[in-house]
Amino acid sequence: MGPKKVDGVGVGLIGLGTVGTATVRILIEQADLLNRRLGAPLTLCRVADVDTTRERGLDLPPGLLSADVDGLLGDPDIDVVIELIGGLEPARTYVLQALQNGKHVVTANKALLAEHGAEIFAAAEEHGGDVAFEASVGGGIPLLRSFREGLAGDEVASFFGILNGTCNYILSRMTKEGADYEEVLAEAQSLGLAEADPTLDVYGLDTAHKLAILVGLAFGARVDLADIHVQGIEAVTPLDIKFAAEFGYRLKLLAIARRQGDAVQARVHPTLIPDHHLLADVSGAMNAVYVTGRYVGQLMFYGPGAGGGPTGTAVVADVIELARNRLAGAAGRVPPLAMPWSRLRATPIIPMDRVTTKHYFRFAAIDRPGVLSAVSGILGRHDISIEAVNQKGRQVRGAVPIVMLTHEAPEKNVDQALRMIDELEFIAAPTARLRVEDLDAERPD
Amino acid sequence: MGPKKVDGVGVGLIGLGTVGTATVRILIEQADLLNRRLGAPLTLCRVADVDTTRERGLDLPPGLLSADVDGLLGDPDIDVVIELIGGLEPARTYVLQALQNGKHVVTANKALLAEHGAEIFAAAEEHGGDVAFEASVGGGIPLLRSFREGLAGDEVASFFGILNGTCNYILSRMTKEGADYEEVLAEAQSLGLAEADPTLDVYGLDTAHKLAILVGLAFGARVDLADIHVQGIEAVTPLDIKFAAEFGYRLKLLAIARRQGDAVQARVHPTLIPDHHLLADVSGAMNAVYVTGRYVGQLMFYGPGAGGGPTGTAVVADVIELARNRLAGAAGRVPPLAMPWSRLRATPIIPMDRVTTKHYFRFAAIDRPGVLSAVSGILGRHDISIEAVNQKGRQVRGAVPIVMLTHEAPEKNVDQALRMIDELEFIAAPTARLRVEDLDAERPD
Repeated sequence: MGPKKVDGVGVGLIGLGTVGTATVRILIEQADLLNRRLGAPLTLCRVADVDTTRERGLDLPPGLLSADVDGLLGDPDIDVVIELIGGLEPARTYVLQALQNGKHVVTANKALLAEHGAEIFAAAEEHGGDVAFEASVGGGIPLLRSFREGLAGDEVASFFGILNGTCNYILSRMTKEGADYEEVLAEAQSLGLAEADPTLDVYGLDTAHKLAILVGLAFGARVDLADIHVQGIEAVTPLDIKFAAEFGYRLKLLAIARRQGDAVQARVHPTLIPDHHLLADVSGAMNAVYVTGRYVGQLMFYGPGAGGGPTGTAVVADVIELARNRLAGAAGRVPPLAMPWSRLRATPIIPMDRVTTKHYFRFAAIDRPGVLSAVSGILGRHDISIEAVNQKGRQVRGAVPIVMLTHEAPEKNVDQALRMIDELEFIAAPTARLRVEDLDAERPD
Repeated sequence: MGPKKVDGVGVGLIGLGTVGTATVRILIEQADLLNRRLGAPLTLCRVADVDTTRERGLDLPPGLLSADVDGLLGDPDIDVVIELIGGLEPARTYVLQALQNGKHVVTANKALLAEHGAEIFAAAEEHGGDVAFEASVGGGIPLLRSFREGLAGDEVASFFGILNGTCNYILSRMTKEGADYEEVLAEAQSLGLAEADPTLDVYGLDTAHKLAILVGLAFGARVDLADIHVQGIEAVTPLDIKFAAEFGYRLKLLAIARRQGDAVQARVHPTLIPDHHLLADVSGAMNAVYVTGRYVGQLMFYGPGAGGGPTGTAVVADVIELARNRLAGAAGRVPPLAMPWSRLRATPIIPMDRVTTKHYFRFAAIDRPGVLSAVSGILGRHDISIEAVNQKGRQVRGAVPIVMLTHEAPEKNVDQALRMIDELEFIAAPTARLRVEDLDAERPD
């Protein structure tokens, strides 16, 4: 057993990995400042982890760390439980148990919330507990708080987020150096900027988890993760990054959400955005979200999306918030998703084939007369009009690249047209395709 | 008398100008959404303004608008009073009266808080009222909330803010077009982007008001507005903007704050920042604050710093927050300046002559041998070392500009050296001088 809570608020933390270690460090090093802010002592009573022996560079009071999660969840001294083990199980069980035991919960677990948010938020409402999860999206950026409270006086029309530092790092390097995806990924792995198994990041699923959470907050919408269109960066080539740059665009993996009547768009894919836009300058492992509100206009939030220190500050900010609620007897004062769970609307996500965007295409054409006419004829018959076209002199594997920007066209038409074009005998390889968003034109309806 | 509050939370608004009108519009148009968020009805009971007849394009319920401020302040239906008349009096009296009457207060009045914050926050603590003022700094950016709650788990090391849209608009135009200050100011006035009397904006005082508020929030510091060094943009020339650009710098009017031991730097002046920095791309009337936290690293918040709609959303977000507190019986849950007034430290601001920065100089030298040697000799004797120098071929009013970047040097030394240099017979005009901040080097201590 660790320190006893004498007064104020007691905290227990499960999962002493990178974020957990940074969180404990902040709670210890900044104890005086945090107590001044709270006006009452915050006591870290217990820390639980399966590995109790690894050296983490922390000077923990004796008895604080153990493997005893049940003891932590049942400790009457503990008011706030911090869950930082990640993954679905046993995190889900621990969070539900904490709420059943009358605790408040802070978590950084986006997968858990994206997959089991409904169950967890309902349990919180049932047991009168608070659930806070600032650290689950955008690392150290106070993003969820801004959506939930800062924008409480407005109606969000759309947002565009760079939410995965690993992908943004890889794309930034590919853009700057013209390097190949595999090469940069391998380097990112050796630098610890990408996981040994990078699937969750590079295939876009981590971004989709975060998008699901933000959509709930921004639109008061209950959405189903399975309905979010997800495409990662694994097929991106430096060639398309370069050609798009010549049109004045830069490539980012974006989480995109837009209110459209009673439904929402919610999609994750590599996206070309104007290179003069503030969001285009968000490089390396940094994250940012660009938001358009009906009354406020445009906002951007920028900061480190990962890392122990940054994410730890978000965890501790949540602890302070829940501690303030507890001291004021005001648990449940602000519902986790900005409005009571019962008032959230089950909101359909518009199927991807009905979404309309601008496109970038790169056709691999064998150089002969009539190619451009055939390609543009097919596009025209699918109501896809061309904004700019550029036939490149350089041969790439025996074919000449023709790159093209289109005006807005429905996905369905684009899918059909590309299928037809790729069957033409003088098209040597599948057409490369990227969606384009002109963010400056983004205006509330 | 306007609508009666049946249940939920009653609101009264004083001051139906640009921001007041936008606030009322949001409260009316978004009533359903706001009530869903709050889980209870929000009723606008009374609006008071000296002018009750002007057409504002609002469809107000009969009897809502009157000139009766006392009636509003004494109305038992009203829980939250919104003060939007601006200026020191009678705003100060109204706010204090509202708190004495047991109301909670939302205000956008930065001058009032910068000048009389101590009195108002003490009155709020005494009467158990909440005071919220998100709209006073950064317009629609949820900035104060982010400092007060989002960064509650961290310790701010420094921040750099573009906090006055008028100044940023003028500097952006001067940079883009090489236009003169007076010319752009006149145009901004004709476009309604600058006041007829622009003094408060262009001389930097508005920025200083906002800086005083942010310093309180960021550092838990009580500072005296009179100690903040304030310099406006009125003496900025397109020539220096251009020469600085050749060194890779862009000019912004910045509010700068930096923790330094038990004291803080707090200053407002035109500042050269690296042109590749995100803050350099904040142009036109937009605002942004770039923050460095000890654990989080770098954050930036960006958005519209003025205008009815954006500022109105900040006012309404504060109303929702105070309404949530009231419904939860949790007034005073978060003190206005992030910690109880009694725990704020009276914090000295470091006098400007003891601040150390890099500098840009433009010397107007009559072209003759030995000039550079004399100038650099004086700098050397004052421990000011030169990072880069560029003698321009072009004559400006009979003199040749020599532009220079220095390494970090104390202000005091710079003052003394420039006094000596300006007395040299071959120096034809007072030396132009701008402070330089290399933001990328900004690291927590």
